[in-house]
Amino acid sequence: MDQNHPQNRAERECLTLQAQIKDFHAAQALLSWDLETLMPPAGYQARAEVTATLAETAHTLLVGPKAQELASSLLASQDPVTKVFLRDHARALRLPASLVAKQARVAGLAHEAWLAARDNNSWALFAPHLEETLQLKREEAELLGYEGNRYDALLEGYEPGLTVAALQELFGALRVASLALIAEFGIEAASTKTSAPVSSLAQIDQVVQLALARKVLALLGLDQSNSRLDLSVHPFCSSIHQGDIRVTTRIQSADWRVCFYSVLHEAGHALYESGFAPDLYRTLAADGASYGMHESQALFWENCLGRSLPFCQYLSQALPALGDGFTLFRQTNTFAKSLIRTEADELTYNLHIILRFELELALLDGSLSVKDLPEAWNEGMQSALGLTPPDHLHGCLQDIHWAHGSFGYFPSYTLGRLYAASLWESIPDFSEGILGGDLTAVKAWLAEHIHRHGRTMLPAQLMGGLGLSLSAEPFLGQVREKLVTINS
Amino acid sequence: MDQNHPQNRAERECLTLQAQIKDFHAAQALLSWDLETLMPPAGYQARAEVTATLAETAHTLLVGPKAQELASSLLASQDPVTKVFLRDHARALRLPASLVAKQARVAGLAHEAWLAARDNNSWALFAPHLEETLQLKREEAELLGYEGNRYDALLEGYEPGLTVAALQELFGALRVASLALIAEFGIEAASTKTSAPVSSLAQIDQVVQLALARKVLALLGLDQSNSRLDLSVHPFCSSIHQGDIRVTTRIQSADWRVCFYSVLHEAGHALYESGFAPDLYRTLAADGASYGMHESQALFWENCLGRSLPFCQYLSQALPALGDGFTLFRQTNTFAKSLIRTEADELTYNLHIILRFELELALLDGSLSVKDLPEAWNEGMQSALGLTPPDHLHGCLQDIHWAHGSFGYFPSYTLGRLYAASLWESIPDFSEGILGGDLTAVKAWLAEHIHRHGRTMLPAQLMGGLGLSLSAEPFLGQVREKLVTINS
Repeated sequence: MDQNHPQNRAERECLTLQAQIKDFHAAQALLSWDLETLMPPAGYQARAEVTATLAETAHTLLVGPKAQELASSLLASQDPVTKVFLRDHARALRLPASLVAKQARVAGLAHEAWLAARDNNSWALFAPHLEETLQLKREEAELLGYEGNRYDALLEGYEPGLTVAALQELFGALRVASLALIAEFGIEAASTKTSAPVSSLAQIDQVVQLALARKVLALLGLDQSNSRLDLSVHPFCSSIHQGDIRVTTRIQSADWRVCFYSVLHEAGHALYESGFAPDLYRTLAADGASYGMHESQALFWENCLGRSLPFCQYLSQALPALGDGFTLFRQTNTFAKSLIRTEADELTYNLHIILRFELELALLDGSLSVKDLPEAWNEGMQSALGLTPPDHLHGCLQDIHWAHGSFGYFPSYTLGRLYAASLWESIPDFSEGILGGDLTAVKAWLAEHIHRHGRTMLPAQLMGGLGLSLSAEPFLGQVREKLVTINS
Repeated sequence: MDQNHPQNRAERECLTLQAQIKDFHAAQALLSWDLETLMPPAGYQARAEVTATLAETAHTLLVGPKAQELASSLLASQDPVTKVFLRDHARALRLPASLVAKQARVAGLAHEAWLAARDNNSWALFAPHLEETLQLKREEAELLGYEGNRYDALLEGYEPGLTVAALQELFGALRVASLALIAEFGIEAASTKTSAPVSSLAQIDQVVQLALARKVLALLGLDQSNSRLDLSVHPFCSSIHQGDIRVTTRIQSADWRVCFYSVLHEAGHALYESGFAPDLYRTLAADGASYGMHESQALFWENCLGRSLPFCQYLSQALPALGDGFTLFRQTNTFAKSLIRTEADELTYNLHIILRFELELALLDGSLSVKDLPEAWNEGMQSALGLTPPDHLHGCLQDIHWAHGSFGYFPSYTLGRLYAASLWESIPDFSEGILGGDLTAVKAWLAEHIHRHGRTMLPAQLMGGLGLSLSAEPFLGQVREKLVTINS
């Protein structure tokens, strides 16, 4: 290859630019991880300023004169990493810095108002902020451009390649089938009956809980040499940069499942982040193919593998105090209708998501007004699960996403669950290894087919490479099988 | 004030630029703190890249076109903060980015070679790196410019306003007086006799050690709301930004003094960092007046106040297991000749510094060659303390400073001790408060006279404001008094 050919020189310069941008992302990741885990509270205001300065600088690098010059000389590049750069550059260029800054300011105030609204069970306290947020999101969508639905422009930021039309069809079928399963297996509301009550076996000492969490992280190759496990209010995974992946968890009373499955979930994200091909590091391609695909990796480990019978049998051997494998399987697969998304089981969870997706769509196109949202929410919950929230905290004020302006994010959760089920169906049978606590083959398979590609392939391409397409069928089949087993 | 006057507009823009630069410094401080305390080892290489990118960006902001435009329109400004900016801008502008980058690379390799040289007791392994480092420091000094000695150009970066000529006079007198005190009080080598042997009273449980450390931090107003205390190999203080000051310490066996006095030392740095006037935050003036002045604040708390009889009496009341106040005073004020700078007592410590200063001076002007350094070191140690290092680890390879290219840094330690003694002499008598564990008056006095000014006043101006000048007399008088007391 001629290193001095203008095209090659531009590609090299583009890699240098991307490395700088990724270095900023790494610093931002650490600032944010630290804020969630360790920072003294008096540091908040100054930390916000530091974060804003770094974000602004990274944005300037992505859209500045050098980036524009490189983008125009690389317009026809077929290099997969360069194509990711061009995609991000083009999208960022459409959004003026003034709009981005205004959205950040509005989100800050909306976050505060959301907290106050929750404390006071008052939709009116939050409504004007949501109205302003929506107006800015509409503006953003118009600037970004779209072909079908305005929501498509926002969805592209989370799930590139997917459209509202496709999502409506998918979610419609999933909703019908989910309601049918709920009826068939007589799944009831959590308050009246849980399908597997928390037995005394679920009560495990905190120190043992953390030791168990560390053990499963070590099985996945995440140890103190390349990762950390810390505590935070909400569990999350933060990839600072290669060689430094940080998982957090929480200990909720003595119920070991909260800590354990949080860790397994975040470990799924961590494996994705640590599995990109080496030549993708310090490029914009070193990230998940989409929010849905990233979530799929977390849900694969948490739900598909982590709540499978072979893995429950392994867990039971590793820590006999948890009870026998089948009891464990029942304890970790419980189904009940409930009001809070983050506490829902894997079947009813998607109905929470579908409701939010439909409300977002209606809010964005103006067919639903902000003031009417609580009523629409409650009607939706009644129609989906036969439940009515006693207050907004258990209803339309439960999630932070809208306060942050993250319209288009919610579908990622269900998409992740569907992708995960498809992958679980097509992965070779590694049950024997799993029974013995050997997860290396599973990890290697995911690394080969998903992780190493980073963002160089779209979700549909990754799935297509495995002969799969986006579908609810594998998920529905697996949940039915679980329901049959636990009810046998 | 006319906000639109060009001068005022430029000053405002200059504050915005400084805020950006300081935000980068804050991010760098966190990256570095995290590396020393928490980072998984596999993260080193990527972390180095992130740090380099941020450092380069911050440097570019300080010397870039905008900074140059502001500097030329503000050249005659009398605003104290603007003057600090102009000083930093002018100094940074004289150093080409290529030299700075080369120095960073050479320092990286020199650091590695220094570690290998220590492991192999081989000066030859380190010598070529020191030679290259020196050549770059000479180049740097020439670019920076100086009037008297080439070393002045480097000293200015640590102790602005001080010259080699003044330092030689000061250190010469300090050396003579120190040797006289050593002779008068029969201070011997640590290996043959320690003036106060470590009694069983010095053995305190680790948990109690940390609780004691937290207690003294709380007395100083440093608690979990605005600061952290963590463990690291070498204790340090890192000020991320206002509201977030981080002190680290180490626990060395059961000798509580190591942990306690490390914390008190670093707390002194922390108080300085948290005491700048509010309008200095996010400006380049939010830092110590000099390295020596910063060190003075640490040594004031560690040695002047922390090893004073009233404070020992307070400690003894707070934790009776430590023994009575006078025993404690003897235990915390021990004097013995030794080979390692960081383990030296406060009297012989300065002889270690003076030796290094003289060697640096000779290396920089070429009158001492790198290959002859070990011999010169050993002769110096023999002449100052009558000791000869058994190997380079206990001799010329004990400090990391030269590997990092920090020529001109060593004098700061002794200057800090001298400043601290002068301040201790002129501070009102707060013994009664100290006896009761009330340190607020001491803290307030330092904040008023030193901290709040940040870098807007040079060390000589700060001292001058108190009617003081740089002198070894207060220090020598205080040490003599201690020697008399502990030998009584």
